[in-house]
Amino acid sequence: MSGNGFGTLFRFTTFGESHGPAIGCVVDGVPPRIPLSEADLQPWLDKRRPGQSRHTTQRQEADQVKILSGVFEGKTTGTPIGLLIENTDQRSKDYGEIAEQFRPGHADVTYWGKYGIRDYRGGGRSSARETAMRVAAGGVARAVLNALVPGGVVIRAAMTQLGDLAIDRAAWDWDQVNANPFFCPDATSVARWEDRLNAIRKDGSSIGGVVEVVAENVPLGLGAPVYDKLDADIAKALMSINAVKGVEIGDGFDAATLTGEQNADEMEIDEQGNLRFLSNHAGGILGGISSGQPIIARMAVKPTSSILTPRRSVDIHGKMVDVRTKGRHDPCVGIRAVPVAEAMMAVTLADHLLRHRAQCG
Amino acid sequence: MSGNGFGTLFRFTTFGESHGPAIGCVVDGVPPRIPLSEADLQPWLDKRRPGQSRHTTQRQEADQVKILSGVFEGKTTGTPIGLLIENTDQRSKDYGEIAEQFRPGHADVTYWGKYGIRDYRGGGRSSARETAMRVAAGGVARAVLNALVPGGVVIRAAMTQLGDLAIDRAAWDWDQVNANPFFCPDATSVARWEDRLNAIRKDGSSIGGVVEVVAENVPLGLGAPVYDKLDADIAKALMSINAVKGVEIGDGFDAATLTGEQNADEMEIDEQGNLRFLSNHAGGILGGISSGQPIIARMAVKPTSSILTPRRSVDIHGKMVDVRTKGRHDPCVGIRAVPVAEAMMAVTLADHLLRHRAQCG
Amino acid sequence: MSGNGFGTLFRFTTFGESHGPAIGCVVDGVPPRIPLSEADLQPWLDKRRPGQSRHTTQRQEADQVKILSGVFEGKTTGTPIGLLIENTDQRSKDYGEIAEQFRPGHADVTYWGKYGIRDYRGGGRSSARETAMRVAAGGVARAVLNALVPGGVVIRAAMTQLGDLAIDRAAWDWDQVNANPFFCPDATSVARWEDRLNAIRKDGSSIGGVVEVVAENVPLGLGAPVYDKLDADIAKALMSINAVKGVEIGDGFDAATLTGEQNADEMEIDEQGNLRFLSNHAGGILGGISSGQPIIARMAVKPTSSILTPRRSVDIHGKMVDVRTKGRHDPCVGIRAVPVAEAMMAVTLADHLLRHRAQCG
Amino acid sequence: MSGNGFGTLFRFTTFGESHGPAIGCVVDGVPPRIPLSEADLQPWLDKRRPGQSRHTTQRQEADQVKILSGVFEGKTTGTPIGLLIENTDQRSKDYGEIAEQFRPGHADVTYWGKYGIRDYRGGGRSSARETAMRVAAGGVARAVLNALVPGGVVIRAAMTQLGDLAIDRAAWDWDQVNANPFFCPDATSVARWEDRLNAIRKDGSSIGGVVEVVAENVPLGLGAPVYDKLDADIAKALMSINAVKGVEIGDGFDAATLTGEQNADEMEIDEQGNLRFLSNHAGGILGGISSGQPIIARMAVKPTSSILTPRRSVDIHGKMVDVRTKGRHDPCVGIRAVPVAEAMMAVTLADHLLRHRAQCG
Repeated sequence: MSGNGFGTLFRFTTFGESHGPAIGCVVDGVPPRIPLSEADLQPWLDKRRPGQSRHTTQRQEADQVKILSGVFEGKTTGTPIGLLIENTDQRSKDYGEIAEQFRPGHADVTYWGKYGIRDYRGGGRSSARETAMRVAAGGVARAVLNALVPGGVVIRAAMTQLGDLAIDRAAWDWDQVNANPFFCPDATSVARWEDRLNAIRKDGSSIGGVVEVVAENVPLGLGAPVYDKLDADIAKALMSINAVKGVEIGDGFDAATLTGEQNADEMEIDEQGNLRFLSNHAGGILGGISSGQPIIARMAVKPTSSILTPRRSVDIHGKMVDVRTKGRHDPCVGIRAVPVAEAMMAVTLADHLLRHRAQCG
Repeated sequence: MSGNGFGTLFRFTTFGESHGPAIGCVVDGVPPRIPLSEADLQPWLDKRRPGQSRHTTQRQEADQVKILSGVFEGKTTGTPIGLLIENTDQRSKDYGEIAEQFRPGHADVTYWGKYGIRDYRGGGRSSARETAMRVAAGGVARAVLNALVPGGVVIRAAMTQLGDLAIDRAAWDWDQVNANPFFCPDATSVARWEDRLNAIRKDGSSIGGVVEVVAENVPLGLGAPVYDKLDADIAKALMSINAVKGVEIGDGFDAATLTGEQNADEMEIDEQGNLRFLSNHAGGILGGISSGQPIIARMAVKPTSSILTPRRSVDIHGKMVDVRTKGRHDPCVGIRAVPVAEAMMAVTLADHLLRHRAQCG
Repeated sequence: MSGNGFGTLFRFTTFGESHGPAIGCVVDGVPPRIPLSEADLQPWLDKRRPGQSRHTTQRQEADQVKILSGVFEGKTTGTPIGLLIENTDQRSKDYGEIAEQFRPGHADVTYWGKYGIRDYRGGGRSSARETAMRVAAGGVARAVLNALVPGGVVIRAAMTQLGDLAIDRAAWDWDQVNANPFFCPDATSVARWEDRLNAIRKDGSSIGGVVEVVAENVPLGLGAPVYDKLDADIAKALMSINAVKGVEIGDGFDAATLTGEQNADEMEIDEQGNLRFLSNHAGGILGGISSGQPIIARMAVKPTSSILTPRRSVDIHGKMVDVRTKGRHDPCVGIRAVPVAEAMMAVTLADHLLRHRAQCG
Repeated sequence: MSGNGFGTLFRFTTFGESHGPAIGCVVDGVPPRIPLSEADLQPWLDKRRPGQSRHTTQRQEADQVKILSGVFEGKTTGTPIGLLIENTDQRSKDYGEIAEQFRPGHADVTYWGKYGIRDYRGGGRSSARETAMRVAAGGVARAVLNALVPGGVVIRAAMTQLGDLAIDRAAWDWDQVNANPFFCPDATSVARWEDRLNAIRKDGSSIGGVVEVVAENVPLGLGAPVYDKLDADIAKALMSINAVKGVEIGDGFDAATLTGEQNADEMEIDEQGNLRFLSNHAGGILGGISSGQPIIARMAVKPTSSILTPRRSVDIHGKMVDVRTKGRHDPCVGIRAVPVAEAMMAVTLADHLLRHRAQCG
């Protein structure tokens, strides 16, 4: 209720600052007897971990997650799961200027204005470091979904646009996503993206991007209309990720340009006697409830605000200053947002799966 | 918690189906001693009311809101405000086919799949009729904002796109919004929109649109990071509106194409010694907290799913059918979503204003 | 979250003042396809209704409950159930003195101090009239419990003490409860209670009492440790009823005087191979989770604060006054609290039943 | 929402089992700029720590609390406060029998029945060890109350009854509470209590008790009627403590025996022109809202279920067994519940202070 937790029944609450001793979270509401170990969570954290290519920040964080509670003899017990990651790469340095200046595009000025105090070291609480715990909680959510949904739920994300360079959707290949440092599903775009990002990094600049996340094999019926529609909660989940400025479900903003005839997803009964949709403009959600089709969401990520070019700003004393952000930053934070988007989709679906089970059995 | 309420401290919960005896809501958490009467709520309901031009559904609903509690001698008492609107235009008719068929694009199939039962009359709970209570609750929220924020908060929305016809943003004039039946802020677009909509209506078709909502004079500091960021809650609020498929804050999806230099909103100290931003790509929110700039959000509304052209579908018996939706429908539901978008912005801001006051005094 | 709702998944929110046009509530989270009609709710309201004997207030309220939504063709649809009771017996009168005076033992002084405004007519929101909606919501909860728990859940309450006159527990007979105007389960106590209450009423005085509520056939497993223990939520539920000052589970305060040997409820396997407890000191709850034994709770109800004898007090102007409460009041509010206690037990169990189903399937 | 957190705005969520690597919690919603360090929390933990006299369990737990986040340069930042206590006294031992047997009076049987899995080591999640985190969170709540309420809020608890040995209330002296190992406020009772407890311990038995907690200087106005009444939330808070079976506010169950004349707390205006109550039967709460008088609550604690005398029970295989609980146990858990009661009062008041500030400014 106080802003640092997400979910109603599958609910996790995170804590920790970028440069404090540790970050952590509590995942509450996990069903019992679900197989879970640190080995189930670590791969997702490794995927998000910085420093894996020259296209992400060169900070080195081991991001070793520890399970402190809630798991006994390899299975969840139904009690809260405490997760902890110690911060190991806290470079000791002089924060002199940054401590008093508001970096444009960052949360410095609003945290200061809201709280009158601010842990300025590495962005403090507003650092993307917090997203590591989302990914850890997302790992728990995946375990829940896979245990409760026959056949498991497949949640995958990819970058579909780097700056203005959009992929060729016809060339989409999920196997490509982990074969390049951009989580790009279109092999033909990789070289262009690499050139663009090299130029951006060389300039000390940054660039935005678009991430698409798809959840397959989601059962029909998830979502609690009217205000906790599944798409409303996905929108909140994705918009809560650092630097995200837009969220779409299915055709998203393109749907505004369609006619009713174009937009309607027709239905038929297939050979096996099952309901089949002939298209998926809706992105798998109708009236706030999952339809059984793949759930498709997209999010727009703004460019990293930390850039080398000086920008006009002010400091806490009300003086005008020029701010130039040195340090190790992602030229495109959208890249590392890919596993975070997957995680937020996973926790949202796990929560609604339990909510649906509560009401409808 | 069960899906039909919105907000944490300023919280409203709605009930009611399209063709039941009444719809209503409870608004809880309203501060005491705020002037409020039915006359403060009715104008917003009138703005949303159908049948006001030939471009919206010809259903006639008086939508007279009654305050049943929580107001004493013209002021709120701090106790819950019960609001009720009786449904007066419930045409008695044979629902025969519609009762058993799933209209493509509608929530028929998912309600049926989720609940195994469905009030099919007029869309039941999934009808846009529910949004009348959002607008009523939004009226209460406006009263709260105006009482607690010096100078009041101005919340206005407009349609910025009808199908693929976007307005000329340079011609934006708020005074135009209520001067045409489309809530269009650009006088030069009105004629084109009218032609388009006449054609759409004549074809028994429908079209989508984009709505932009702007909140001015919002104090710096609203928003509860990390998961209840102000933009995350606005995204949820807007995405929960019927037919919305996308939400943007500030530059939204365009931000993905910018560089860090372009996107950064620089700051300076103005002549009065106050902080001033030189641009507003962020849409008034940084790190999930309002910055004092205007808050700008947009939402994409899909075309009305009720169209005259037959579409392929199935019925509750698993048989394939052709569905053709007769009746009185909005050719562009985006139009009537304009006051709803304002209302959802208002309730979100009122909630976060109280949350901010709780934590930060 | 704002104080006028109860429950997490089975959640109801009430509104309305004693002398406003109506009171009502929204029950959200009800599972679909559960048979429900006004006829299922009315008997519980009738049981609570005043004016049925000379031992309760002579106010006449028909308390006819209307279902406004959420039920279709005799069954719940999974959407929120709106309930409304119109206030019919609002005697028009001069509230002159009462409007400005704080009645000792009443919430007048604290409402005024908290809100700075107060609907003084008949106690406004703090009137026991609000409990009618608890009883209505409790009726919905009973329907849920009976539909989901094989064999149904039996929830019954009785008065076990009137002032210092305790029943003879050995004479407990549930059939007696509805055979006397005190919900007294011990036929041998009725005459004594009647004498006492006649004397109290003649004096214009009032007296307290104790109510015991028992829930049978509650499945093992309900309760969400650690903070939402089933007994913790029952304690909150009962303590939230007007005039309640104490709550016990099982042996309650007597447990403080026992040794571990006396208190331990031993277990065995019965002839059918089922777990059987040999005693029930725990009141059916261990570690916050129902054990399958009957759940037993008690609550202490203070004497009605409205009495004829003048009491020293102050008014809103800070002047000292003598207050004497005329009007139609219950000499023992404990009596009419009996069906309210049942209702609060029912809603708490229904909520935890859904919560358990969510987490444990 | 999932049971392991408490509070709406000042909200803490705990995790950890008795014999896991650590226990911890997240305190969310703390106002910014409040002085806080580990030194503010440790004394309360030390007060609760076992092994301080021969009257409590001889387990040795250092209970050193670490603040992992949310505090910067000695002050809270408004971000979540992560707290961690490593478990140091986890005796490695064979849990053979206990692993499969249900100890009477313990949560073994209900955890097993609810979850189908159970961390049996030292009681797992149902161990009173969890209360250490309540005490730590209570320390944060005290800091909040002292920072926001002029003059600070004084919260103190004492044991008022050991078994059937009640204190002489006329001899109440708060200074005595920390001068004996029983938190007994009546010096004349200490010797008798010591004799009784020595006998109990010698027998390997246990005994219950009653704890009273008093909060002074609580401002008028805290509490959110109707369902989140201050007394309702205190009742939940105290009833959620391990082994508590009853809760009273003010006169509690004695109020049931009073007449309206006896129970009414009369009011006057004192020499300074302030409202003064002439008695406090209500325990400082009227209509669910604090009245400015001391808040008085009591809780009944059952005897420790772990005793040496064999008790009849069953095991997870459905076989009947005799259970005899060896190990280091508190002969009267009521003693160590004293600082826990204080903590739960503190967190409840801190939460309602913020809630009141939100609604009423």
